[in-house]
Formats: sequence, structure tokens, C-alpha cells
Amino acid sequence: MPELCIKNGTVLTMDQAGTVIPDGAVLVEGSRISYCGPRGQMPPAPGRRELDARGGLILPGLINGHTHAAMTLLRGLADDLPLDTWLNEHIFPAERNLTAQSVYWGTMLALAEMIKGGTTCFCDMYLFAHQVARAVDQVGLRAVVGEVIYDFPSPSYGELDNGFAVSEDLIRRYQDHPRITGAVMPHALYTCSPPLLTRAGQMAQDLDCDINIHMSETLHETQTILERHGARPLAHAASLGLVGPRLWIDHGVDLHADEIQRLAQAGCRLSLLPESNMKLASGLANLGAMLQAGLRLSLGTDGCASNNDLDLFGEMDSCAKVHKAAYLDPTNSPARTVLELATRRGGDVFGQPDLGMLKPGALADVIVIDTDQPHLTPMYNPYSHLVYAASGADVMHTVCHGQVLMADRKLLTMDEEEVLARAKEEAFRLSGRRSL
Amino acid sequence: MPELCIKNGTVLTMDQAGTVIPDGAVLVEGSRISYCGPRGQMPPAPGRRELDARGGLILPGLINGHTHAAMTLLRGLADDLPLDTWLNEHIFPAERNLTAQSVYWGTMLALAEMIKGGTTCFCDMYLFAHQVARAVDQVGLRAVVGEVIYDFPSPSYGELDNGFAVSEDLIRRYQDHPRITGAVMPHALYTCSPPLLTRAGQMAQDLDCDINIHMSETLHETQTILERHGARPLAHAASLGLVGPRLWIDHGVDLHADEIQRLAQAGCRLSLLPESNMKLASGLANLGAMLQAGLRLSLGTDGCASNNDLDLFGEMDSCAKVHKAAYLDPTNSPARTVLELATRRGGDVFGQPDLGMLKPGALADVIVIDTDQPHLTPMYNPYSHLVYAASGADVMHTVCHGQVLMADRKLLTMDEEEVLARAKEEAFRLSGRRSL
Repeated sequence: MPELCIKNGTVLTMDQAGTVIPDGAVLVEGSRISYCGPRGQMPPAPGRRELDARGGLILPGLINGHTHAAMTLLRGLADDLPLDTWLNEHIFPAERNLTAQSVYWGTMLALAEMIKGGTTCFCDMYLFAHQVARAVDQVGLRAVVGEVIYDFPSPSYGELDNGFAVSEDLIRRYQDHPRITGAVMPHALYTCSPPLLTRAGQMAQDLDCDINIHMSETLHETQTILERHGARPLAHAASLGLVGPRLWIDHGVDLHADEIQRLAQAGCRLSLLPESNMKLASGLANLGAMLQAGLRLSLGTDGCASNNDLDLFGEMDSCAKVHKAAYLDPTNSPARTVLELATRRGGDVFGQPDLGMLKPGALADVIVIDTDQPHLTPMYNPYSHLVYAASGADVMHTVCHGQVLMADRKLLTMDEEEVLARAKEEAFRLSGRRSL
Repeated sequence: MPELCIKNGTVLTMDQAGTVIPDGAVLVEGSRISYCGPRGQMPPAPGRRELDARGGLILPGLINGHTHAAMTLLRGLADDLPLDTWLNEHIFPAERNLTAQSVYWGTMLALAEMIKGGTTCFCDMYLFAHQVARAVDQVGLRAVVGEVIYDFPSPSYGELDNGFAVSEDLIRRYQDHPRITGAVMPHALYTCSPPLLTRAGQMAQDLDCDINIHMSETLHETQTILERHGARPLAHAASLGLVGPRLWIDHGVDLHADEIQRLAQAGCRLSLLPESNMKLASGLANLGAMLQAGLRLSLGTDGCASNNDLDLFGEMDSCAKVHKAAYLDPTNSPARTVLELATRRGGDVFGQPDLGMLKPGALADVIVIDTDQPHLTPMYNPYSHLVYAASGADVMHTVCHGQVLMADRKLLTMDEEEVLARAKEEAFRLSGRRSL
């Protein structure tokens, strides 16, 4: 890959110290950053490709801690309904029509949205996960990918045994991939029997990978697990040997203070999904207590059926605001901390301390924000603007693993028009409803 | 004004029945809509100007029920702080440096953001309100404008008596303006003495205009009014003769069920400001109870110091989600209802039943949304997309009072570059801090 230079902007490194470099530059060699500092001190290198930040902000690509990418196809299919009606009468029936092809095109649609919104890395749990990985591989993003498994037959792999086979194949196939990692992904404690969960935990250990699961999403889930197993979700998971550094949970809404401590001490990770939790009326995770406990945290959008977009800027805004409202404390969830969840802290959750931060040697996932716009003027504090005023549409350039995926809002590694057209066709096949 | 035709899109009329017209067209003659229906049945008119919706959505311009436009200059100056620190150490000191010129350019910046975000009408409470009106008049938006008055001397008019004189002059000057209306705007019950409030109420009656005031924003406000006057805010306002159809309150967070009933029965109006209430940790208005009581409601962004943008799309998203979360009910605040707050219901709050709706005879405030984008694909339900997935950046064309203010994202009634440059200068003068 030719050398790349991103310059003429303010660099937010998102390192621990919060280093900001006015008139900075980022140099990329191959997949990694070779220089990050003042433009004036940048080493010369004739012939390298340049991306002009035009006075905007240069920061790490955003990291989406949990989604179901192909659910873009179900975006807005059903909203504002009781959870049971929504799932059983709308989402599940549509998902029964899923095919490898629909997951592929639904994922491509999601990747287009992510790149245009400045997301360069995500964790995906869905059906036909090989198709998710295939799309990610082609388009050039970074992802942790898993096939969702549960007690009942899957529209993807059929019987459970095949689910484990598919998971193992996925994990092994991408073992040496520079951008894609497989993981074991049992759906949730209430959809997976103890034997399934034990086997999933064993597989994660045998294949040396993560185990990612929805957990403690609602009070109703806690009630169900208590009734079935006589223990709250975390205690139940612990009794099955799942609570350790491989465990990465999504949601974590109904967690008591001692459970947050336990997760932190065990080295578990958690993806917060505030907009999904709000829209489905699930409740709200206690971000403040989690930060205080030192729990490893990232921020995610969840799937488009419950959000309804993959815009991490909107998610950061909601995250920062809703915790203030819920705890009646305007100092809760400050902007820089929330941006860290979607960058450096997110990188740590993905097990990559060289991700989500701009410094020499770090992975070259970089985005540029166009700040020359009314809604981002004036700019006293870039963290504030990114969290409270920017949207995905303000992203000008997106680079992942050293490759330019979008320049001046044009997608370079996919045919956007084809993706929109194919995704609409697949959406119609799933839902029986034509896109307007 | 030449005749205008907006066509090649799906028309959301936002009328009571929720009429949607596939492949519709909107014709404009002068400042009003002359036709709204299927494109095929549109009357011929050679030589008229055309705006192509390119398959997107055509809907009424959005209505912002409460803001302080020129506070764009303080956007992101201080966030995530306790309310007292934020106000007394950051916002008030900066506002002491306000001049007519800074309010003018700050308002121009806000108008640029509004037009680009699809807002065509707003209610503004601020200092140097004549400058606000001047900017609105020049640029072509629609607004209710008022000079904020309170017990202490103002950076704008000085002593209180001048405040009443300025208010009266403003209201009289714009009495016959087609797009601008003046109103009396005492700041709040805790910053205005009973004599001030009584005089403001009398002035509203004498000049036949609205009286707009921040009210019931926080528990702390209620406490203060109880201590000072032995009554909760609404009862205190009623004792001063303010509670009637002229009264338009902003916030309404701490209102009991009987107070909501009383406001509704008295024909009062209320602007909801959920993002500001979240960010300042004030609490949350009870939208469900207000709708049920038949209270006349609109949605607003508040000023950019506490939001930090004027994007009503983001505001609708937050509004729909946060009420679900707070009341643990996913059916609370459905998308169409929330969009009504920012269109037809907002028009009613502005006292204009022919505003916020597309139909023959209605005021020609129209926007077009570009839906040919990954994050708006597929589209089963336009209401869902507008509330949960769209942002201000998706607005393609903006028309107000029959005049095209933005076509293909280009502002036509102001010099955007000049506005950004002048606003940055003024922001520096206020804050002593240079924009990045």
C-alpha cells in the first residue's frame, strides 16, 4: 500500500492524556500509523497520497461495540410497539426469510452506512455470519464476527450442532485475518440452555476467542432467569463458568453494583447500547458506576431494527444526555469520556490496545470531520462538538487499516448505488413490503 | 414571486388524517400552497420554477418551539458542569459582552443552521431582539421574536423600563409583517418580580400578543417559587393573571397532572425541550399526560449552549426515545406523533392553523428530504425514518413563505462563508476564546 498522509486539521489523538495537536498530520505506512504530530515536523516523503482535512478534525475511526449489521434490511419495519408484538409479529417472521444473500446485501448496506458515518470497526452478532465476514473482508472494515446460536433451529444453520460447526469454521477461517476475528456468540441466557452455554464457553477456550452474549438487558430477563435457574443472570453465567476475560456482554442494563464490580474484577467487557435500550424501553445501564468500577466499556448502536441507524455520533449524544437526565446530574457522562467509549476504550474491549487511538505504531483507522459548517461553528472544544453537535454526515474521509474507504464522501471500496438497489430487493423479499 | 413546483417525491401532508401522497407534487403561488396532490393531476403552468425531490420526501418545514438563536456563539463553550457553574462562570459572563452586532451575526449563524436542517419557523427569546428580527426578515424565515426581560439590568436595553419600551416597539414594528410576530417575553418566574409579570401580562393584552416564559423547568425552580410566593409556579402565574390563551410556556418539566389539565383547559401552549432538559439534568416533561389532556404542544431545541445544536431531527429522535425509556413503555411517543409536534401541532402553538401542514391554502413552508442514502434505506415507514434515522444533513431543499431558501444544500438568501467568518469573530469577542 502506498504511503498516506492526512493533514491540515486538528488531531485528536484520543490517548490517555487527551493530546490534541493543532495543525497536525498523520502518516500511514501499510496498515499502521508511522507519524502523528505537528505538520511542520512531519518527515518528508515525496509521492505519497494525501488526504486534506481542510481545517477539520482528525481522529480515530469510531468503534461500534455491538450490532446486527444486516438488520438494516428491517430498519423501520416496525416501531413503537410492545416488545413481544414487535419481535414475534414483525422481526422474527421477517428473519425466517433470511438467506445468505440477504445477509450479505444487508451487511453491505450497513457497511456503506458505517463508512459514511465514520465507523471503522464493529462487533457483529447475526445469522449467516460467514456472509457478514465476506462483506467486511471485501469492503475493508474491521470486525469481530459471530454466528448467533440458540436452543431452537436457526434460519441459517438449522440444528444446533451445525451452529457450533459453523461457529468453529468461522473462527478458524479468520484466525490469521488482519481485520476480522471470529467469536462464539450464544444469543442470551434466556434463549440458550445451560448445556449450550457450557459448550460455547468450552469452545471459546479451545479456540482461544471471545464469547459474546446479550445479558442483563431487561428486568424481565432477570425475572425469567431467576425463575428458571434460581439465580440472577450474572450468577447463572458464572455457575456455567462463563465469567472471565473471554466474556463480552451486550446491554448490562439490569446489573446491581456488586455485579458491576464482579464483572470488572473478572476482566469482562461490556458494550453499552443506550439508544436501543431507550427505544425498546428496557431501562438504562449505570455508566457512572461502571466507569468507577473500572469495567472495560464500549459503546454500540445495536441493530437497525431497534435504533434505527448505525450513527455512533447520535449514539454518543444520546449516551451523554440520557445518563445526565436519569441521574439528575449534568456532570455525568462528560463528552470526552463518551468519545473514549467509541474510540480508545472501545479498542480495549476489542482486545486491541493499539486501536482507537492515534499514535505511531497504532492501527491506521482514521476519520476526518468537516467542521466548516454552521452547526459546528464556532468550535471551542472539539470533544463537545463531536458528541453534542456532529452527525455521521459530517465525516469527510474514512480510512481503515491504512486503506482509504471514503474520500470526500465517496465510497471507494463498494458500488453504493448497486448496494442500495440490492438491499431494497432483499428487504422486499424479507418483509413482503416495498421500500418507498 | 414566480410560481414554484416541488415534485417527484412522496408527500407527507402531516394533516390530521396522516395523508401520504406517493409520487405527489406541491404547487406554490406567492406565499401559499395552491395544489398538493398526485403529480399526474397537477394543473399545467408553463414557466414555473421546479424543485426536484428526486424520489425523496416532501413535508412541511419543521417548527422549533423555543430557542435562543444567537447562543450559537456559545455552542460548546462549557458543558457537563453543574448548572450554577455553567451559568454563572461561563454563560452569563460571555453574555455580558453581547452587542447588537454579535446578536445579529449569532442569529445569522443560527438561521444558516436552521435552513440547512429543515427548520422554517421558530420562537426566539433573547437580548437585542430587534437584531434577531432583522436577520429573520432578511433571510426569509418565519419567527415569533421577543426581547427577554427580567428584574436586573440587561446587557441589551439596560433598565427594566427600557425593556418594556423595546418589547412594545418590537411588537408594534412587526405587527403587519408576513413572517415575523413580536411577543412579550419575561424570562422566568424566579427572575421576574410579580409587578414585572403583571405588567408583562397587561402589555400582552394591550398589544394583543403572546406572552412567552420559561416555566416549571426544574424542581429547584418550584422550590424557589414555593419559598418566595407560597405557591407552585403555575398557581403563582395564575395569581398574577397570566394563565390564559396568551400564555406560552417553555419546558414544563415539573408539572403535576392537575397542572397539566389546568394548562390545557385554559388554552395555554407549551414547548417541550427534551434534549436541553436531559443535558442540563432538569428532568423530563410528561409528554404522554400532556397529549392525553389535549394540551397544545410543540417541540424545541432550546439554545445551542444547552443542546448543542438546532437540529429538530435529533430532537425528535431524543423525544421519542427518552419518553419510552423514562416510562418503560415502547409505545410512548410514537414517531408520527413526535413529527406532528414539529409540524402541525407546532403550527397550532404558533397560532397558525395553516402552518405545519401541506394542503391548498396553507402557508408554503416546505422541505425535501434526500432519502437515497444508506442510512435511510430501505424505507417502509417515512415517519419512522424522519424521527429515528434522518438528520438535518438529509434536507435537500428548504422553502419558507414560498421563497426557496436552500436548493441542493446551497443557501440562497445569505452568504454562508461570510456568516461563518463573522460569527467566529463575534464568538471570540464574547468568550475571549478563539474558535479552533
